[in-house]
Amino acid sequence: MSLLADTLAAIGPLDAAAMAAAHARHATLTKPPGSLGSLEELGVRLAGLAGANPPPLPEPAVVGVFAGDHGVLSQRVSPWPQEVTAQMVANFLAGGAVVNAFARQTGAGVVVIDVGVATPLLTAEPAAADGDSAVAAPAQGNPEVVEGPRLVRANVRPGTRDLSVEPAMTRSEATAAVEVGIRVAGELVDGGAGCLITGDMGIGNTTPAAALIAAFTGAAAADVTGRGTGIDDETHGRKVSVVQRALALHRPDPGDPVGVLATVGGLEHAALAGFVLGGAARRVPVILDGVIADSAALAAAALAPDAVGAMVAGHRSAEPGASVALRHLGLEPMVDLGLRLGEGTGAVLAWPIVAAAARVLHDVATFDSAGVAEK
Amino acid sequence: MSLLADTLAAIGPLDAAAMAAAHARHATLTKPPGSLGSLEELGVRLAGLAGANPPPLPEPAVVGVFAGDHGVLSQRVSPWPQEVTAQMVANFLAGGAVVNAFARQTGAGVVVIDVGVATPLLTAEPAAADGDSAVAAPAQGNPEVVEGPRLVRANVRPGTRDLSVEPAMTRSEATAAVEVGIRVAGELVDGGAGCLITGDMGIGNTTPAAALIAAFTGAAAADVTGRGTGIDDETHGRKVSVVQRALALHRPDPGDPVGVLATVGGLEHAALAGFVLGGAARRVPVILDGVIADSAALAAAALAPDAVGAMVAGHRSAEPGASVALRHLGLEPMVDLGLRLGEGTGAVLAWPIVAAAARVLHDVATFDSAGVAEK
Repeated sequence: MSLLADTLAAIGPLDAAAMAAAHARHATLTKPPGSLGSLEELGVRLAGLAGANPPPLPEPAVVGVFAGDHGVLSQRVSPWPQEVTAQMVANFLAGGAVVNAFARQTGAGVVVIDVGVATPLLTAEPAAADGDSAVAAPAQGNPEVVEGPRLVRANVRPGTRDLSVEPAMTRSEATAAVEVGIRVAGELVDGGAGCLITGDMGIGNTTPAAALIAAFTGAAAADVTGRGTGIDDETHGRKVSVVQRALALHRPDPGDPVGVLATVGGLEHAALAGFVLGGAARRVPVILDGVIADSAALAAAALAPDAVGAMVAGHRSAEPGASVALRHLGLEPMVDLGLRLGEGTGAVLAWPIVAAAARVLHDVATFDSAGVAEK
Repeated sequence: MSLLADTLAAIGPLDAAAMAAAHARHATLTKPPGSLGSLEELGVRLAGLAGANPPPLPEPAVVGVFAGDHGVLSQRVSPWPQEVTAQMVANFLAGGAVVNAFARQTGAGVVVIDVGVATPLLTAEPAAADGDSAVAAPAQGNPEVVEGPRLVRANVRPGTRDLSVEPAMTRSEATAAVEVGIRVAGELVDGGAGCLITGDMGIGNTTPAAALIAAFTGAAAADVTGRGTGIDDETHGRKVSVVQRALALHRPDPGDPVGVLATVGGLEHAALAGFVLGGAARRVPVILDGVIADSAALAAAALAPDAVGAMVAGHRSAEPGASVALRHLGLEPMVDLGLRLGEGTGAVLAWPIVAAAARVLHDVATFDSAGVAEK
C-alpha cells in the first residue's frame, strides 16, 4: 500500500474506555463538577486519543510551517508579491517572524517545510535533509526537539498552477504533497513530539482555502472568501469571483478529497491535510491554526472521519471561512483574538491551554487525598 | 496620607508617547498591518502602562490567591460548607489545586493570602510572614519569585458578617483589606514580578460579587447573579433575593467605593481591589480572573478610573455578572472556555498570551531588517 493508504488505515476512533476513565477522574478532583468548561471535554478527548488516562502531556510541541506558492496569484487576489513567501521562509529560519516570537514565549519548536515555494530559497540556514528523509529527527526526549527553527526541503513543485483556469496540481502532485505532511508528522512524533501545531506561509493561500471550504462544506464562495492580509473591496470582489469560477470549472467532488485538493487546493494545504492525518494515525493531538489549516482539516476529515478526534481548533481566525469549516468539523476554538496572520501564530498561543487540559488529569488532588469536603 | 490615598495618588494615565511608538513599531514588523487583532492593541497598551516601547515582558508572573469567608453563607447561597475555604487554602499550599497545575504549566508563581478565612488554617506550609510585612520578597530577578506556593497571613477578620442583614464589614475593615491587597502587590513587584494575576477562594463569594456588580453598574440583581459552583434553581432563586435584599437594605452608593465594599463586598473582593490598585500604581499589568476579580476591578476603577489601564481581562467567566462587569470596564477577555472555577485559573491561562503581545514588540523583525518586500 501507499503511505497515504497505510496512514488512513491506521486512523481509528477514540478509545471509549480511556474517555470514561478521564470523565470519572474529573468528578473526583478538587473543583466543582464541570467548572473547567470546555477544558474538561478536551481532557477527556485527549485521553481517548492516547488510549490512556491521564493522557500524556502534549509535550514537546512543534509547529510545522508548510510553505507554498500559488499560480492564482496572477489573478491579483493579493497585493503582496510572490517573493514574499520565500522571504518569509528566510525570516522564519532566522527566528524573526511572529510565529518564532510566540514559539519562544511558549516553548514550542519550529520546523519550516518547503513543499512548494516558487522562488529559490536563499538561506544560510542548514537544511535538515533533502527529499524523503524529511526531518532530521532528534533523539527521543531530547530537548533539541524544541530547538529550531529548521528547514525541511520537500518541494513537490514550484507553486501551483492557476486554479481559476486549470487544475492547481495533478493528482499525483497532490498525493505527494499530502505524503510530505504525513512524513513530517511521523518523523516529528518519532523524534519525541507530543503535540503537532499547524503553520503555513504562502502569498495568495486564502484563495484556495476558500475554494476548499466551499467544496467540502457546500457553502457559497461569497460566504467563505475573506480579506486575507487585509485586501480592499475591489480585490475582495475579484477574489470571490475567482473562487466561484474555479468551483464552476472543476466541480470538485467532496467524495474525492485528493481530487478536490488537486483541482482547487494548494501544496501547503495538501501537506497540512497529511500532517493532520499523520498526527491522527500516531494518535497525537494536532492543533489547527487558522483558515488554511481549517480548510486542510476538512480534506483530512473527508479522507478519514476519525481524524477529527485528533484535531484541536487553536483559535478562531478572523477569516469567515474558518468559522464555516470549524462548524462543519464540530470543533470549538480555544482562543478568539481576531488574529488573521497565519504562520501557526494562533495555534501556538492555544498550546499551553491544551497542555493545561491534560495536566489537570495528572496533577490535581482529589477530594479524598486533599481532605476537602464535598457539597 | 494613608497607604490607600498614596496609592490612588500614584495612579495616572497611560503614556501617550510610548503608545504612539508601539503603534508605529507594529506597522514596521513583518506581518500584515492589524493582523494580530486584539494583541496589537494590548501590546500598545502595555507600552503605555510601562511608559516604554517595547514594553517590558510581563515576567515573572505571580498569582495572588486571596481567600476569605462569607457570613451570607448562612442564607444557604451555596451547597458547599464554609470549611472548604480553609481546606482549599491547604490544597493550594500543597500544590494540589487546578490553579497550581495551570501555574506549573505556564511558569507562574502562586502566593496565597489569608485575608479573611473563618476556619483556623491547619497547614504545615511555612508562612511567609505575619501582618504588615505581607510577602517574603525574593531578591530582584531571583527565579524564586516563580517558586511557591507560599502563604501570607493577613487575616483582617474571620469572614464577613451576613450582608443580607447588616454591613459585611466596617469601613475600617474594608480599608484594611484593600490595603492588604495593595501591600501584597507592592511587595511582589519589589520582588521582581512583572505581572500580577488575580486569584480568589471563598465559599459563597459569588454572592457579594453579584451585589458589587449590581451596585457599581446599576444592573439588576437577577442579571448578574449566577450559579457559582453549579447551584440548583431553588438555591439560585434564594441567591437572587439575597442580593436584592442586600441592595435594598444598604443602598450602596457607587460614588463611595469603600462604602460599597464594606456593606455588600467580601474581604477577598476588597483585597483584590487593592491588588489591582497596587499593580496600577506600580504600572504593572494585572490579569483579572473571573467574576470575583471583575467585581473587585469595578471597585478599583471607581476609586481610580486610570487603574483600568493596568487591567487585562484574562477570560470570560461563565458567570453572567462577569460579562456585565467587563462591558462596564470596556475590557474584552482574552480567553473564553466556559470556566467557572475561580482561583485564578482563567487568568493564568491568559498570561502567556499577554506575554506574547509584549514579546512581538521585542522580537519580531522589520520588513527592512528581514529583507521582506511590502505590498
